[in-house]
Amino acid sequence: MKAIVVRPPNKGVSVEEVEIKERVGVGQVRIKSVMTGICGTDRGIVNGKLSFSYPPKDYNFLILGHEALGRVEEVGEGVKELKKGDYVVPVVRRGCGVCLNCKIGRQDFCETGNFIEAGIRGKHGFMREEYVDDEKYLVKVPEEVVDIAVLTEPFSNVVKAINGLLFVQRRMVWNCEDSSFECRTAFVVGTGPIGTFFSLLLRTLGFDVYILNKRDASPTEEYIAEKIGATFVDTEKESDKLPPTDLIVDTSGVPSAFIPLMKKMKHNSALILFGTIEGERAEITSDLVTEIVEKNIIIMGSVNASKRDFQEALNYLSIWKYRYGDVLSRMITSMVSVEEAPKVLMSKPKGEIKTVIKWA
Amino acid sequence: MKAIVVRPPNKGVSVEEVEIKERVGVGQVRIKSVMTGICGTDRGIVNGKLSFSYPPKDYNFLILGHEALGRVEEVGEGVKELKKGDYVVPVVRRGCGVCLNCKIGRQDFCETGNFIEAGIRGKHGFMREEYVDDEKYLVKVPEEVVDIAVLTEPFSNVVKAINGLLFVQRRMVWNCEDSSFECRTAFVVGTGPIGTFFSLLLRTLGFDVYILNKRDASPTEEYIAEKIGATFVDTEKESDKLPPTDLIVDTSGVPSAFIPLMKKMKHNSALILFGTIEGERAEITSDLVTEIVEKNIIIMGSVNASKRDFQEALNYLSIWKYRYGDVLSRMITSMVSVEEAPKVLMSKPKGEIKTVIKWA
Amino acid sequence: MKAIVVRPPNKGVSVEEVEIKERVGVGQVRIKSVMTGICGTDRGIVNGKLSFSYPPKDYNFLILGHEALGRVEEVGEGVKELKKGDYVVPVVRRGCGVCLNCKIGRQDFCETGNFIEAGIRGKHGFMREEYVDDEKYLVKVPEEVVDIAVLTEPFSNVVKAINGLLFVQRRMVWNCEDSSFECRTAFVVGTGPIGTFFSLLLRTLGFDVYILNKRDASPTEEYIAEKIGATFVDTEKESDKLPPTDLIVDTSGVPSAFIPLMKKMKHNSALILFGTIEGERAEITSDLVTEIVEKNIIIMGSVNASKRDFQEALNYLSIWKYRYGDVLSRMITSMVSVEEAPKVLMSKPKGEIKTVIKWA
Amino acid sequence: MKAIVVRPPNKGVSVEEVEIKERVGVGQVRIKSVMTGICGTDRGIVNGKLSFSYPPKDYNFLILGHEALGRVEEVGEGVKELKKGDYVVPVVRRGCGVCLNCKIGRQDFCETGNFIEAGIRGKHGFMREEYVDDEKYLVKVPEEVVDIAVLTEPFSNVVKAINGLLFVQRRMVWNCEDSSFECRTAFVVGTGPIGTFFSLLLRTLGFDVYILNKRDASPTEEYIAEKIGATFVDTEKESDKLPPTDLIVDTSGVPSAFIPLMKKMKHNSALILFGTIEGERAEITSDLVTEIVEKNIIIMGSVNASKRDFQEALNYLSIWKYRYGDVLSRMITSMVSVEEAPKVLMSKPKGEIKTVIKWA
Repeated sequence: MKAIVVRPPNKGVSVEEVEIKERVGVGQVRIKSVMTGICGTDRGIVNGKLSFSYPPKDYNFLILGHEALGRVEEVGEGVKELKKGDYVVPVVRRGCGVCLNCKIGRQDFCETGNFIEAGIRGKHGFMREEYVDDEKYLVKVPEEVVDIAVLTEPFSNVVKAINGLLFVQRRMVWNCEDSSFECRTAFVVGTGPIGTFFSLLLRTLGFDVYILNKRDASPTEEYIAEKIGATFVDTEKESDKLPPTDLIVDTSGVPSAFIPLMKKMKHNSALILFGTIEGERAEITSDLVTEIVEKNIIIMGSVNASKRDFQEALNYLSIWKYRYGDVLSRMITSMVSVEEAPKVLMSKPKGEIKTVIKWA
Repeated sequence: MKAIVVRPPNKGVSVEEVEIKERVGVGQVRIKSVMTGICGTDRGIVNGKLSFSYPPKDYNFLILGHEALGRVEEVGEGVKELKKGDYVVPVVRRGCGVCLNCKIGRQDFCETGNFIEAGIRGKHGFMREEYVDDEKYLVKVPEEVVDIAVLTEPFSNVVKAINGLLFVQRRMVWNCEDSSFECRTAFVVGTGPIGTFFSLLLRTLGFDVYILNKRDASPTEEYIAEKIGATFVDTEKESDKLPPTDLIVDTSGVPSAFIPLMKKMKHNSALILFGTIEGERAEITSDLVTEIVEKNIIIMGSVNASKRDFQEALNYLSIWKYRYGDVLSRMITSMVSVEEAPKVLMSKPKGEIKTVIKWA
Repeated sequence: MKAIVVRPPNKGVSVEEVEIKERVGVGQVRIKSVMTGICGTDRGIVNGKLSFSYPPKDYNFLILGHEALGRVEEVGEGVKELKKGDYVVPVVRRGCGVCLNCKIGRQDFCETGNFIEAGIRGKHGFMREEYVDDEKYLVKVPEEVVDIAVLTEPFSNVVKAINGLLFVQRRMVWNCEDSSFECRTAFVVGTGPIGTFFSLLLRTLGFDVYILNKRDASPTEEYIAEKIGATFVDTEKESDKLPPTDLIVDTSGVPSAFIPLMKKMKHNSALILFGTIEGERAEITSDLVTEIVEKNIIIMGSVNASKRDFQEALNYLSIWKYRYGDVLSRMITSMVSVEEAPKVLMSKPKGEIKTVIKWA
Repeated sequence: MKAIVVRPPNKGVSVEEVEIKERVGVGQVRIKSVMTGICGTDRGIVNGKLSFSYPPKDYNFLILGHEALGRVEEVGEGVKELKKGDYVVPVVRRGCGVCLNCKIGRQDFCETGNFIEAGIRGKHGFMREEYVDDEKYLVKVPEEVVDIAVLTEPFSNVVKAINGLLFVQRRMVWNCEDSSFECRTAFVVGTGPIGTFFSLLLRTLGFDVYILNKRDASPTEEYIAEKIGATFVDTEKESDKLPPTDLIVDTSGVPSAFIPLMKKMKHNSALILFGTIEGERAEITSDLVTEIVEKNIIIMGSVNASKRDFQEALNYLSIWKYRYGDVLSRMITSMVSVEEAPKVLMSKPKGEIKTVIKWA
């Protein structure tokens, strides 16, 4: 079958004919690829920059792809819920089998670091015509959101981060006087798909959301901000517009982007670190440390997501598609064929929010 | 009566004869001072360095002192639990009355910042012969720990921080395979009274504790470390001794002290920021941010404590006095008279862990 | 204006012309009634059976109605979010102002019992042409669910109960091996609107749901069960079909309905008590108590809901309307005029799931 | 060696010479028995009343005993903390190895029920001269409480129950206005060792405690109640003395003992079920169900304890021994030799709180 293949740590990507023999075992299904999304991690691997990427055992190549939508083609014995024709999104990370979090289905909190991740490290990904997987790693997609369900995986990580936030903030009373979060303010640094998902989710929870970038909004960004009732702020020109805040979400990974904003943080506020990048640095002072202490501030890194987060993500996709119409479908800024994939994997198309490869 | 008086923002401290008229109202008691402890905040005020310190309304001076032990002398109407002769420790912070946390007795999480603090800002402290206070701000001291109960206030803040930690870490499974914390490692940066309390508490919870300073242990520090089963590490010479860690507690406030240690942080680990200082700076890189993200690391500032934390602190004092003998009493490195207080308030005696003023 | 009026503790209900002078104050809006739902509580008041129902101060009558949908007609000064034309659902209970839960917007956990409830006790309800209310008690309705939003209030109470359940079950690991709830089973006792909402919500969370009644399913019940993938069980004939369960939700209030089911409860399972009724009794044995102890079983009564629960309820209505089509609109089994209201308030129409009064 | 042997389901108990070959493996230690306590479960087995009791595989007898204190005699390879001479208390329950709670060291929440319990079901107990156990099931005893540490096991179950309570009550604000629990009232039904432990723990947390029995206090009960500041109430004569309550703890298992008290339960209150008994019954009404619903009442069964709970239990023993002097040692109402054990196992000595067998 056709697959999109990389050979980390080498640069490069190609569409190749591969032979992967996978039989459908007990509790497993065969899935035909429908769409796969492209993200920064894929491009990092393609460009030979992600040192942690490696092929599965016994292979000298890695099939790329971890943002996927597929359709069930064949159902093995012992499968409980899935039927032929069901649309599914596979979970990316598979646990180490040893640590307590992996033992209870929370490999997103794997403690050993010995997990594998489809299309990233140690396991073939989903950019291929078909694959076999265990039912327990597959999330069923409700029909109403099949067209945008390829966005589920990146969004699931946002759901995990916000669930984590809401849990840790129960250390005190963080809700407003009317029990809602409508008195709360959030800054979201970065306007890619992840930033957009954070903005959507925080608005739905009732937060007053400021979307931050160091440039003007593009027309699509402007459209989305208006549609969901958020405020786009060009931090180069308008940072005086920013009020004190209860939450900063950084999706950039750039310390010099979020550190200056921290002086706006209120008592009991939180900073979610979600973005990663290379080669940046910034200075912090003991005054900033004092602020974090005196204000009971929490900073939380968050990565990956559990299957439960995928399920919640799909619920939000249903709400937003219904409520905001084309906001989500507009996030898919281009849909390319398998043959065109290497080109868009090597370099980001202009104006991209999310580029998607169509398989069937 | 005699009181230890400051006039922030001016430098200086003196023992003065003051007249504070306080009648014992409903729900109140009159307290005679027994001991008061001295900490860095007191010295910061005395040396004119804490810009946030100010006298109570209608006063041009502030009575210092927030670490106190007193004895009930007179009991007002409507007092429920306290009797004449009871020993008590007063809570320092009094809430803003407006935010939701202050409304439920958690002024340690005050959101407005409009709280007052006895001996620090807007309210006379406890370095005076006697004072009147509401029963609800007074924590009864069990008889077995009266001699060391002056340590309750500083320690209460440590209890709050660790309670906060244990709560936020329920975001995943953080206990060991046998449900204890005995597989967990902690670094405690700083060896003052706060660092010592963190070390004691974490040992009692089962953590393997490394006490860190950039010098050799003093004989008292060595004694305490051995008694409680912790390891003292001189980070200048022996940092290669340090294993990967699940927790770093910084009591120094110096970013260059704790940032280099963060490379030792394990998945799901936490950094508690507790120390504050002025004029320090350090660099952070996007690689550190990536580590925080990829490992689900949490960083938590913590300040102050609730009355419930004071009560738990007293329970731990009982345990430790019984279990470790003189470890706690040795922390009181000198006991001075009221007349000697200004001198030890201006500058720290050599070898001090905690200096205490004796009132009665 | 026209209003539906009761005079508890007397029986009876009538449409009357009433004069209620309400000016739109700061932070308030005037609302025109669109729909009001009828529930068992309303009929209890109308039939003189609810001893706790009483008119507002200075009135000798009570305007009925607590399940409402309205449209904003006039917006007062200081209103932040609502605009003319917005659809809203009002919160029913208003706090005592004294206990800590009421102070933080959780009057659904009022500790004193001195709350008032619109249309039930001490406050006029929403079965009238228009009313004035504070913005903070109004929940904005997304456009896509205006037609079914009259269901929000009863459903909000279900959302609170399930949120409570998910919180208390964090006392241990209750999720499945894949982090979802798909290995969990729930029995829902009762097939009225509340039972249907529990079934929908538990299915959405992944539970295998058994809907229980002591008779066959009606055609609508059959339709709903099939649509959402739940199993209807006639407990008179088919109780042997029931597997061991992780959750029982009782919406009947009848002890003899849920107690016999408790022998099916698994370790760590929960029983939610939600229904209330009069005049029933049943026997329990020490063997049942032993089961509760040995299996760490939890039983939780749940009443009312916070504004946050109303907001989540509206999100679920969006999901379900989109996902299940007419399941929710079919729950509104009849829509009557104001003039017809007294009749349907006195006695339940045959085949009713929810009867709604149309105002505008 | 000598051991106390039963042959369930047969009645009877005897001191026998048994040969149990146990080598000290990796991570294991050999323990010499110091004391073992006797509880109702032991007597239930001895009297042939506990149907769930059975011998280990390949044995036709069961060595009794689950409340134990031992001293380490021999230390195997790979043991990390324990040394020869250390005093230890073994954990009773050993997990099923399959369910998620057992996998993370919380076999007290075992979901399958396929656990084994030393001295009760499927595993030899500790009423023998020596035994070998894994370090991970052994809790180290601080020196200051060796004399009363045989009480650790029964008390650990109380610690688990109260930890569970404090967790589930975070569903709302349950602390008092000053953050403590001093405004809270608890009834403890039953005055055996378990009831006494609940009373001690709840007093230490700040609750106003009423100890309930349907007779006068014995002199020891009177002494304990006075010492800890609790009120003993004879429910036959003085139940009008009882105020509304925030918590009822039942240690009797008798429904007719705790159900009538439930009318005293306040909003948001809790009932902990801890006691088990046979052959009792009582009636409940739909009015009681309504109270549970309308007041958000929670009822929680609790059984067994985790190793962490044992560790906390030992901390409390230290506090109380120091604070209350002989209250705990008085709970050990008689200390018998191994030879006398069968007699006190067959029937309860008069005035018993806790009977202990001395081994060495």
